[in-house]
Amino acid sequence: MKTIPQEELFHRIEGFQEKLKEKGTDLAVIIQNADLYYFSGTIQAEYLFIPQEGEPVLLVRRGSERAQAESSFKKIIEFKSSREIPNILTQEDIELPEELGLELDVLSYQVATKLQHILEADKLVNITTVIRQSRMIKSDYEIILMKRAANQLKKIPTLIKSNLQEGMSELELSSIIEEHLRLQGHPGRIRMRGLTNEMPIGVCVSGDNAEVPLKTDALCGGPGIHASIGIGSSKKKIIEGEPIVIDFVSNHHGYHVDQTRLAVLGEPSAYLQETYEKSVELLDKLSEYLLPQHTWQEIYEQGKRLAEELDVADYFMGHGENKVRFVGHGVGLELNEFPFLADGLDIDLEPGMTIALEPKLLIPELGAIGIENTYLITEDGPQNLTTSSEELIIV
Amino acid sequence: MKTIPQEELFHRIEGFQEKLKEKGTDLAVIIQNADLYYFSGTIQAEYLFIPQEGEPVLLVRRGSERAQAESSFKKIIEFKSSREIPNILTQEDIELPEELGLELDVLSYQVATKLQHILEADKLVNITTVIRQSRMIKSDYEIILMKRAANQLKKIPTLIKSNLQEGMSELELSSIIEEHLRLQGHPGRIRMRGLTNEMPIGVCVSGDNAEVPLKTDALCGGPGIHASIGIGSSKKKIIEGEPIVIDFVSNHHGYHVDQTRLAVLGEPSAYLQETYEKSVELLDKLSEYLLPQHTWQEIYEQGKRLAEELDVADYFMGHGENKVRFVGHGVGLELNEFPFLADGLDIDLEPGMTIALEPKLLIPELGAIGIENTYLITEDGPQNLTTSSEELIIV
Repeated sequence: MKTIPQEELFHRIEGFQEKLKEKGTDLAVIIQNADLYYFSGTIQAEYLFIPQEGEPVLLVRRGSERAQAESSFKKIIEFKSSREIPNILTQEDIELPEELGLELDVLSYQVATKLQHILEADKLVNITTVIRQSRMIKSDYEIILMKRAANQLKKIPTLIKSNLQEGMSELELSSIIEEHLRLQGHPGRIRMRGLTNEMPIGVCVSGDNAEVPLKTDALCGGPGIHASIGIGSSKKKIIEGEPIVIDFVSNHHGYHVDQTRLAVLGEPSAYLQETYEKSVELLDKLSEYLLPQHTWQEIYEQGKRLAEELDVADYFMGHGENKVRFVGHGVGLELNEFPFLADGLDIDLEPGMTIALEPKLLIPELGAIGIENTYLITEDGPQNLTTSSEELIIV
Repeated sequence: MKTIPQEELFHRIEGFQEKLKEKGTDLAVIIQNADLYYFSGTIQAEYLFIPQEGEPVLLVRRGSERAQAESSFKKIIEFKSSREIPNILTQEDIELPEELGLELDVLSYQVATKLQHILEADKLVNITTVIRQSRMIKSDYEIILMKRAANQLKKIPTLIKSNLQEGMSELELSSIIEEHLRLQGHPGRIRMRGLTNEMPIGVCVSGDNAEVPLKTDALCGGPGIHASIGIGSSKKKIIEGEPIVIDFVSNHHGYHVDQTRLAVLGEPSAYLQETYEKSVELLDKLSEYLLPQHTWQEIYEQGKRLAEELDVADYFMGHGENKVRFVGHGVGLELNEFPFLADGLDIDLEPGMTIALEPKLLIPELGAIGIENTYLITEDGPQNLTTSSEELIIV
């Protein structure tokens, strides 16, 4: 069965080819799985060749029948060795490129230089930004998939209410949510761009575990089971009264949606309650700025301003030296897509962007307070895809 | 708390430095997480610089206190920008290298060329083989961790017996095992080297789903939840009488162990039973060849010979065009470690190697038959780490 509708797929390719033309890139090769799926509808192939003009060619090492079943492309060719590539391209009327476009941010040095050599290209250029720009504006078809992905997360607050118990560890609570997501068709993995960006599908992080510094540019990821992993829920027992960050990423047909809710075992302190209310107000007010007339960095600046107004600026996105310098990120086939709501990015928001907004507060010796929603940018304002109850989950 | 004991860590570094000297590589930079953990005891750092002689230097972008707590190294330095690297190295008495060693099989073209430029290196060399050679011989310390990893898998047959039910899907069965592994401290992810080698932590694959061709060089991975993922358990209901491959990878402190068992719902056919017995005999006899005096390729050749003797050669490691050309692989901090038991690799087995041996039979229209164990090579013969019951699990 074809995965991506043919019209949708061809539209993506056309848009991408226009960008290649503007850039002066003769030929692009797509290899990384998220990019490959986006531009072909299958990850069975090893190489997707997209010339500036004309039909793309998929090269499959084995199992071409699977690629044929999944992709709408007609030019699906089995090959044994990369040395055959120039001949195959010539047969398909694709000229060897002067300028070869590759995913140079993720493609290994070994593979990139091998392809340059085989294709006798004068120059390698990075097409990652062009790919990310293509992918950052979601089509109506993609928005339907994103909404289904959001639905996987809908019942998490109810699930916490009926399962969180005294003496439970972060890991135990997390595994209940993981199973719940899996049974809805979550593949149990998420995709994040970059060699060292290894992420669990979600975390339950309690108390000052939220303060553990992370290598990845993220907040409240928790210490993980062990230092060899470095991020995720741990075996720490959840203690009464401490905030528990419930941050999970769904995955439906490859599309991710990101949501955080906050829970507490036993009665929360007045301070925790008040700060929680401030964090929700911060998110609500900030989300109203997710409009096409604002830039990526303006949202981050506005987040900082709102945190000052609410008298929580010291805790906004961390404290002291361990603050992270963003307030949200695009989501889609990867968890770290364009746009990044961060300093220095003077680029407009656009309708069709899907953005996880997460203005979290990190309070020394207490933990993290805050929630996160994923929004769709439209001409008429932001639409919240993550419609789980936003109440503080008190068990 | 230090993760890897200091003596163990220093021993690893010394052995690696000797290999750098033999190769003529002045300086190695380690970046990928599995390699970084092996050589430093933390993944919190961004770069680990290992000169041919002298103490390594860890560079940490933020959260150096975490790296200091986890690693036994003393030279742990915070930095903001990669441009600071030459100065930091000079201060630490490390000369800028002529020949710079990098993990060129996984490191992106962008990062590799940036480092070459910053360090003004004449030449980049790939240190991946040297790293893999260091890691393929496990120390006594590592073997203890591997045995604990194997223990995570011990009760899977019992778990299947008490949970497999009529009408259950592969996904439902899989999620029960996943939860079982998680609660024992499995981080919910495994590491496999290579950009497009995305693997779930395990699969339940029933009937002819075992025949779905995979992009990764693996057998019986299943179609996965969706083509965007491409591998894993699916929503297919398990049917009475078909073989169900239960292939799971544990993870204890980063160390993986690989095990497959076979189950069937309802009474298996006489053919399935007989073929199962042959597959177990094949594994048993083949495992006896896991001796230091044999080479990697000899094990594969011997597997093919034994399959012929048992009259199952047509199904050995697949059938027709979709056969895979190996019968086992090393396991450790990654699932695809040295050695690879495959054609053309005339290299000796050595004591301390840990190898997943998986002579599976793929029978057209029936599915996959076979089991898999992970063995430790010793002077006195192979030691099976995966001691779960090897009986056909009939429910």
